[in-house]
Amino acid sequence: MELKNHRDLETIKFGQQLVFDAYGCDYEVMDSITECTKILNELVDLIKMRKLLEPVVVNASPNTAVGGEDPGGNSGFVIVQESHISIHTFSKRGFVTIDVYSCKSFDETLVIDYLRNKLKPKDFDTLSLGRGLKYPKENIY
Amino acid sequence: MELKNHRDLETIKFGQQLVFDAYGCDYEVMDSITECTKILNELVDLIKMRKLLEPVVVNASPNTAVGGEDPGGNSGFVIVQESHISIHTFSKRGFVTIDVYSCKSFDETLVIDYLRNKLKPKDFDTLSLGRGLKYPKENIY
Repeated sequence: MELKNHRDLETIKFGQQLVFDAYGCDYEVMDSITECTKILNELVDLIKMRKLLEPVVVNASPNTAVGGEDPGGNSGFVIVQESHISIHTFSKRGFVTIDVYSCKSFDETLVIDYLRNKLKPKDFDTLSLGRGLKYPKENIY
Repeated sequence: MELKNHRDLETIKFGQQLVFDAYGCDYEVMDSITECTKILNELVDLIKMRKLLEPVVVNASPNTAVGGEDPGGNSGFVIVQESHISIHTFSKRGFVTIDVYSCKSFDETLVIDYLRNKLKPKDFDTLSLGRGLKYPKENIY
């Protein structure tokens, strides 16, 4: 298919991504596939996303190939119409790393407050990224 | 379970995440579930990750709830022992947005070159993020 002339396209920001890394989290929550699945489902509801598939969460066994730095945990994902949410937990290190990526703007404070309440981290870092900063406002094909 | 004293923990960086947003990409590649699945599999091989599950790629229909800004495309991810890779395509806008998140360091140039060759974007943005910057070097539980 032929691409329309790419010059002079009007562009907008496609979406936003909240990056959340938490330390010293609640062991029982991190270590439970049920709880990790619940976090994905509850985040979807919280910011009114719509699931394309049910969340997938799997247990990841310790990964010795990275110098004993991965003690194992759970890894999960949910694909939503707005993009995705991912979670990885490393229970014995107390570490949880989450991405919430949406083409629809959402209240990041709501997500952070939910995760703080759920994971009870001793410390956490967040970063907010704009994604697709040159997303064309109209179809180009 | 009781958390060990969180003070004076020796910490390291957990992992790295490459964020890749591409514009004016090859329509046939973006619009094909087979091609999107192939991209996930080939990226896994390229940077020597190990899959925990086979990639999941689904077609996402146009999303009118975000002001006609989502013309539909494919959404997919693969959970690997090292974290995950995700892809979202919006074929009619020529836009592809990819995250490669790994606890193992990898050659980002290799990934970018592969994606440029595969997607033939007219333009792209990348960002490299350090994740889990306060990841404890030893187990805390």
